[in-house]
Amino acid sequence: MADSPGPQRASIIGTGLVGGSIGLALRANGWHVSGTDLEPAAEQRALELGVIDAIGLDPNSAITFVASPVRSIPAEVQRALSVTTGIVTDVGSVKASVVAAVSNPRFVGGHPMAGSEQLGVEGATPDLFEGAVWVLTPVADTDSDHYSVVASVVRLLGAEVVALAPDRHDALVAVVSHVPHLTAAALMGIADERAEEHVALLRLAAGGFRDMTRIAAGTPTIWPDICAENQDAIVDVIDRLVVELGDLRTMVADGQRDRLLATLERAQQARRNLPSRIVHPAEVAEIRIPVPDRDGVIADVTTFASEMAINIADIEIAHSSEGDRGVLILLVDTVRAEAFRIGLVERGYRPAVQYLG
Amino acid sequence: MADSPGPQRASIIGTGLVGGSIGLALRANGWHVSGTDLEPAAEQRALELGVIDAIGLDPNSAITFVASPVRSIPAEVQRALSVTTGIVTDVGSVKASVVAAVSNPRFVGGHPMAGSEQLGVEGATPDLFEGAVWVLTPVADTDSDHYSVVASVVRLLGAEVVALAPDRHDALVAVVSHVPHLTAAALMGIADERAEEHVALLRLAAGGFRDMTRIAAGTPTIWPDICAENQDAIVDVIDRLVVELGDLRTMVADGQRDRLLATLERAQQARRNLPSRIVHPAEVAEIRIPVPDRDGVIADVTTFASEMAINIADIEIAHSSEGDRGVLILLVDTVRAEAFRIGLVERGYRPAVQYLG
Repeated sequence: MADSPGPQRASIIGTGLVGGSIGLALRANGWHVSGTDLEPAAEQRALELGVIDAIGLDPNSAITFVASPVRSIPAEVQRALSVTTGIVTDVGSVKASVVAAVSNPRFVGGHPMAGSEQLGVEGATPDLFEGAVWVLTPVADTDSDHYSVVASVVRLLGAEVVALAPDRHDALVAVVSHVPHLTAAALMGIADERAEEHVALLRLAAGGFRDMTRIAAGTPTIWPDICAENQDAIVDVIDRLVVELGDLRTMVADGQRDRLLATLERAQQARRNLPSRIVHPAEVAEIRIPVPDRDGVIADVTTFASEMAINIADIEIAHSSEGDRGVLILLVDTVRAEAFRIGLVERGYRPAVQYLG
Repeated sequence: MADSPGPQRASIIGTGLVGGSIGLALRANGWHVSGTDLEPAAEQRALELGVIDAIGLDPNSAITFVASPVRSIPAEVQRALSVTTGIVTDVGSVKASVVAAVSNPRFVGGHPMAGSEQLGVEGATPDLFEGAVWVLTPVADTDSDHYSVVASVVRLLGAEVVALAPDRHDALVAVVSHVPHLTAAALMGIADERAEEHVALLRLAAGGFRDMTRIAAGTPTIWPDICAENQDAIVDVIDRLVVELGDLRTMVADGQRDRLLATLERAQQARRNLPSRIVHPAEVAEIRIPVPDRDGVIADVTTFASEMAINIADIEIAHSSEGDRGVLILLVDTVRAEAFRIGLVERGYRPAVQYLG
């Protein structure tokens, strides 16, 4: 039976946004997908939405994706390793604790950097991982053939594989995700506390502040688990941030103008080197257009792009710290960037083009 | 002569982006505007661009706007008070130090929350202040008629006046602008330092991190002055932030899950109550549309809006902490919001509408 021709088989444990999107993407590639969730209603809904072919954990799965809440991952991985004979991977935001808890050549830890905190299965889409970075965390006892299988399935889903040691992954996401989230919450908390004293504060909170605190609007419920699992790295980065803020405090309190300027210049340089979005840099150009704060300007630019058949890979508005006037930053195909620039100039804009390759 | 009919007269000291935009807006309203700048080339360019009618400080100015670098403001205000017989106001980002240095019934401190750190006179535009908040900081010795004149001119420029005590203004901008800027720089600095050890870090830096650090890309040169002038308030807010981060560190290190969740939930609530942009809330509705990370989706939504003749007052993409998939947030006219929502649903989107009024 197992040797008869037929679709490749996979299972998903946890049919939320990420698990559901994996299901849709695998099914779009012809796989047979089984799925299970702690909540019977969720697995039922996943079946109705066509995210999975069947409810349950398929013993013949070539690969099982564990996409349940972070805290439950080690136990669910163990269950998948017992029930199935195939490879098991997970999608948790923290890796060292999971990899330490599960030592099995059939397990490869993973973490897709895509939409981990939004919506449930209703938001699942087969293209969630298109162009996303998907970290895999092989360790010494990982079977290299098994690693290759996971990497090829991940690439099938449209993601790019970045291999990292589990503790390195955790240290890096503490820097670029976990501590920024906590810091956004801290800044928002302070603003909220001051706003109680003086309602005008929120009227003064312009684009820059909104950008900085936006991620604090995300679902809080996932964070106690993430913070528990990535405790050491998060504490380490908070400590580093407190030292850095202490240095800045000294520069401000002691009027160390040159040191302050040098620090801010380094940060500016680093931020400018951070591409607007991580894409294949040779393929996109960044177009920066100073825009007035006027109704319709965004629609005008994007409509014009669409008339010129130019795909906008990403859009952001860089606000100043004060005020809403800003610079519209678009990522567009390199080959069409110059034509777009000329068209924008003719339309009265003053775009600047930067090729990222 | 001064009593003969003719245009109202104003002067601008400092013809950069903000001063230049004031000049353009006043001239568009029929005023005669003189302007001066520390840099002769800058005042010459302002004249060429039609930002001012004449170079110089006009003794018959009814009002003079001091828009020079923060540090030079008290001296320039004193000069304007000596040379002209009219009212003098300024546009500096910090107010208590200026107001303390200048005690004169003809002076009213001010701070437009608009585009203070971008570009020079080339970016000046008469609509820079349309819909912006413009703080005025009257004190006990401010003549109330003079205050009313400044307020009416500011409204003529399209801004909304918010009156605040100078030290209150400074405390509030430290919270919503100055310390967020320093914090963004600190986070970017830490990421940059870790990126030197491991280049993969920047590939893991997704939308949430980019949002948080975006303002760090702004011009650093203005910050030593701002930090010097608003030293006490900035130090106070940094201290508060360090305490808040220390609390979060304790919650993480000690596994205080409930306290952590409650803190993040408060921040989430506060952030969600912060409108996408400060506008007349009765007039706009917020439309949130989950969007796949796919070429063309932003152009599709904005083009569709323009086909429906719907003005987009503001647009932002709320990224998750990890990954680029997000929610497109649009502010549109309340009266057209429902029609737009229905159109979006027919187009296959799943928008949610929130009326802000």
